[in-house]
Amino acid sequence: MSSPSARQLHLNAFIYPAGHHEAAWRHPSSQPERIFDADYYHQIAQTAEAAKFDAIFFADGPALRSEARYSTAGRLEPITLLASVAAATERIGLIATASTTYYEPYNLARLFSTLDFLSRGRAGWNIVTTSTDAAAENFGLPTHPDPAVRYERAREFVDAALRLWDSWEDDAIVADRDSGLYADTDKIHRAEFVGKHLQVRGPFNAPRSPQGNPVLVQAGASNDGRAFAAQYAEAIFTAHQTLGHAQAFYGDIRARAEALGRNPDHVKILPGISPFIGDTERAARDLEREFNELTVPAYGLYQLRGITEVDLSTLDLDAPVPIDIFGDAGDVTDNKRSRKQVVAGIVERERPTVRQLLHRLAGARGHRVVTGTPEQIADTISEWFTHGAADGFNVMPPYYPGGLEVFTETVVPLLRRRGLFRSEYTGTTLREHFDLPRPASQFAGDRAASHAG
Amino acid sequence: MSSPSARQLHLNAFIYPAGHHEAAWRHPSSQPERIFDADYYHQIAQTAEAAKFDAIFFADGPALRSEARYSTAGRLEPITLLASVAAATERIGLIATASTTYYEPYNLARLFSTLDFLSRGRAGWNIVTTSTDAAAENFGLPTHPDPAVRYERAREFVDAALRLWDSWEDDAIVADRDSGLYADTDKIHRAEFVGKHLQVRGPFNAPRSPQGNPVLVQAGASNDGRAFAAQYAEAIFTAHQTLGHAQAFYGDIRARAEALGRNPDHVKILPGISPFIGDTERAARDLEREFNELTVPAYGLYQLRGITEVDLSTLDLDAPVPIDIFGDAGDVTDNKRSRKQVVAGIVERERPTVRQLLHRLAGARGHRVVTGTPEQIADTISEWFTHGAADGFNVMPPYYPGGLEVFTETVVPLLRRRGLFRSEYTGTTLREHFDLPRPASQFAGDRAASHAG
Repeated sequence: MSSPSARQLHLNAFIYPAGHHEAAWRHPSSQPERIFDADYYHQIAQTAEAAKFDAIFFADGPALRSEARYSTAGRLEPITLLASVAAATERIGLIATASTTYYEPYNLARLFSTLDFLSRGRAGWNIVTTSTDAAAENFGLPTHPDPAVRYERAREFVDAALRLWDSWEDDAIVADRDSGLYADTDKIHRAEFVGKHLQVRGPFNAPRSPQGNPVLVQAGASNDGRAFAAQYAEAIFTAHQTLGHAQAFYGDIRARAEALGRNPDHVKILPGISPFIGDTERAARDLEREFNELTVPAYGLYQLRGITEVDLSTLDLDAPVPIDIFGDAGDVTDNKRSRKQVVAGIVERERPTVRQLLHRLAGARGHRVVTGTPEQIADTISEWFTHGAADGFNVMPPYYPGGLEVFTETVVPLLRRRGLFRSEYTGTTLREHFDLPRPASQFAGDRAASHAG
Repeated sequence: MSSPSARQLHLNAFIYPAGHHEAAWRHPSSQPERIFDADYYHQIAQTAEAAKFDAIFFADGPALRSEARYSTAGRLEPITLLASVAAATERIGLIATASTTYYEPYNLARLFSTLDFLSRGRAGWNIVTTSTDAAAENFGLPTHPDPAVRYERAREFVDAALRLWDSWEDDAIVADRDSGLYADTDKIHRAEFVGKHLQVRGPFNAPRSPQGNPVLVQAGASNDGRAFAAQYAEAIFTAHQTLGHAQAFYGDIRARAEALGRNPDHVKILPGISPFIGDTERAARDLEREFNELTVPAYGLYQLRGITEVDLSTLDLDAPVPIDIFGDAGDVTDNKRSRKQVVAGIVERERPTVRQLLHRLAGARGHRVVTGTPEQIADTISEWFTHGAADGFNVMPPYYPGGLEVFTETVVPLLRRRGLFRSEYTGTTLREHFDLPRPASQFAGDRAASHAG
């Protein structure tokens, strides 16, 4: 057993309605009838918290993205949902996805600030620019903006939000009942953000929240996405199929962060991992097969088209996938869809039939599926963690709630025995779980700045 | 005691950080150090729920509105806050304010839909167009839109939101594990809303929520506000100082609703009432005086300017307020600030000094302050309720949490004894508490409509 001061894994439970496998809702172990109930998410969060996970996480997008005919396409809005979960938990971090393309900074900054207050410092924001074209038409835009424009706005958005969150210095509230002085308004600053896409004057209408600002999380793997992540992200969710790709990404992000003057240890890199767990490897493979046999090819083809913009529906399901149909599988350094390159890599390495490819992606939409015994899963986690590929994992159970329970009951104890994962929380905030500093307000001590309050 | 089937009062607790009196935070009975804690609001909501109140309610605006030097100007965002309260309560309705001027329908519809799911049907939306000029600059707008434009957008906003909330018919989800059919996509409709200010295509990315849509609440008292309320509102918060004004408003709104083909009983009218309660009338008056003596005139003048756009700061505090300085106190039928006319009425009837006027408004910003014994408070409530002025009250305790506790412990039992208020909830949703129907989806049965899912 390693010493308690050894580098520790970070584990995040990525919650998906009935589970990450696209056919999870059809399997008897899932509970699709509960996916719009608060209790269901409270139970899952409490399972993750009992196992001392760093955080739970919800993806999101402002459009109906999936084919509802075959999948649990509806979603609760995650910030609101996590505010509910905050009331049913004590320690676990709460990370919600929200779009910089389809929100206004003042509104979104308030939602996350409030979540941080309600949870006493457990909020995280997964910053996305939204990749689905359908969102634009829900906001009166004729077309979805290009990635470069979306990232330009995203930078402005985060800069503006940070100025709002910082606008009350930590000690702005005096609350002196005798004198009647509530706040020192010299310590409440206007944001005065003026960008190309966004203007926000401020000041913010709430004090600085427990964490200063929510932990900033990001998941873009394109060149723009990586540049953004290296500058802003404190945690990164990412999808890799091989150790080599994960190592390359890990090294690239850390080098980019360092080049920008950041401490690379303040960027936690968490690849996705979707575990099918069995007492024996065969049992695990049988379980995975059971799920794959419940998939509907029409839905898999629809999803694949969404991920890659390539349509395989005219091909025979049992014919081999043309080797170059998804293009180059090389390292992602342009703005091509990074997930498309993950798919191209699978095709290049595994030469699957269409059906095999659909099954390969059914588990976690391009994230890595690991199938085996608890020891085998723990070995994989340990290998990536100790070989410069990951600071932890974004755990994506194929089905909920049972898939998370099996992981926490069988894999987590092995990780503890190996000295890789905490037995108790040592802090109370998400920043503390992730070993991240609490930032000072950018206005702290800046008595000359404009103020209003 | 009346029969249980008699017309029943509706009681809503209007929650305000340290209390509605502007100096509440300075009084030893308030708890300003808790106003950013979830527990504080859970406790208040549980007090209201134990007393079988219909709902709790939060005001809101996307700007720092008050002078933070003298007041608890910071605010938690109310939808997120109510999602937390939903997890700590079982029955009480949860009404949040949100602006149609500074939100996008798709985002806001999701927040309320999620709150309705998380609370199993207890969400309400207080629809505001936002009256503070400061908000515009937080959203990159050079100026705050005129009231007529704001209401035009508000109508489009609510229409679009209703189409989103209706977009999945109630029985759209099939969830047949055997066949693999999750939803009948013929029952998932695009919103296809095209207005002058807003375009929203849809479909919504969640099923229809327990109440169909949140209870629609409104508080505008101008002519535009009344017309809007008569068309959309299912509950109205309003401010009146005299029985006569309240009766006139009550009759006007019901007549307008009826003229639009609505059942006027489906518009619950709830005037604000801020109770100072004592064992004797003298004790109650002493308590009110204690609070008023803690006010800071500079803050009162600032607030008065915000409400009326009239600046009295050059006048002697002990000089009489010029009789016509706030203009006409008559019935509000144009787009003048309705609260300004409430102030004009106080000046006309009471001929106060500047200081007296500031004290008069310190309690509840123009809402009615009632000061007396529990019997006297109950008499006032009963008089307005039985004389065509109110369907219930928006209770605005001068200080929290104690001010609500005193009301529920002393006034509510008297209202029960008089047969005016429930002893137990008879329903589980806010619509049921308010005796409002659950609307059918506007797309129900409309098989020819465009759909996508």
